[in-house]
Amino acid sequence: MKTSLLLVAHGSRRAASNDEVRRLTEALAERAGERYHGVSCAFLELAEPSIPDGVRACLDAGAGEVVVLPFFLSAGRHVAEDIPGEVEKVRAERPEARIRIAPYLGAADAIPALLLELAGH
Amino acid sequence: MKTSLLLVAHGSRRAASNDEVRRLTEALAERAGERYHGVSCAFLELAEPSIPDGVRACLDAGAGEVVVLPFFLSAGRHVAEDIPGEVEKVRAERPEARIRIAPYLGAADAIPALLLELAGH
Repeated sequence: MKTSLLLVAHGSRRAASNDEVRRLTEALAERAGERYHGVSCAFLELAEPSIPDGVRACLDAGAGEVVVLPFFLSAGRHVAEDIPGEVEKVRAERPEARIRIAPYLGAADAIPALLLELAGH
Repeated sequence: MKTSLLLVAHGSRRAASNDEVRRLTEALAERAGERYHGVSCAFLELAEPSIPDGVRACLDAGAGEVVVLPFFLSAGRHVAEDIPGEVEKVRAERPEARIRIAPYLGAADAIPALLLELAGH
């Protein structure tokens, strides 16, 4: 089955922040190589596409499975409730699609090591 | 010179999110071992301590240098202006202190690899 990756960010009123997410998505796509059918991004609010539109675009492009990857640092309401709620809208429309929500970025075990590297001391 | 590390997060109305930052700070301290004189956290808004108070506490505990590490994903106003503005308040009070702002988390080169690992496909 073809799997696509959808990076989901909060979205900002600041266009430059949304563009930063889009550039990161391009870097992800490049790094992923052939691993995914497609790599794209969507936004919870304040920017386009929405999460349901992003998931639908993956499915319409031929993916049978979509991995939704929350680009969030904390396990707040957005990660716990809002993103699953948006995903549920598409699950109701497309019961045959497999949509999986991956752990949010802040939950990655590698974060402490990465922060110490950035601190650079 | 003794160097302390200050992880700076946005701060949330949700106590659990602030506690998540505090737990991450403990994990950082454990991982850092003897590398820093101290490892602590501060918040830009909505939680305590503030950034100036966090920096002052590092200096009062004997650090001659403080590395301020922004736990932020995008290079928005908070990273570009607000955090430097808060740091400047302490620089004005304590001209002898060395305070360095490290790159924000979202700028780390390792982020794409980390995201692909989380996606787990």
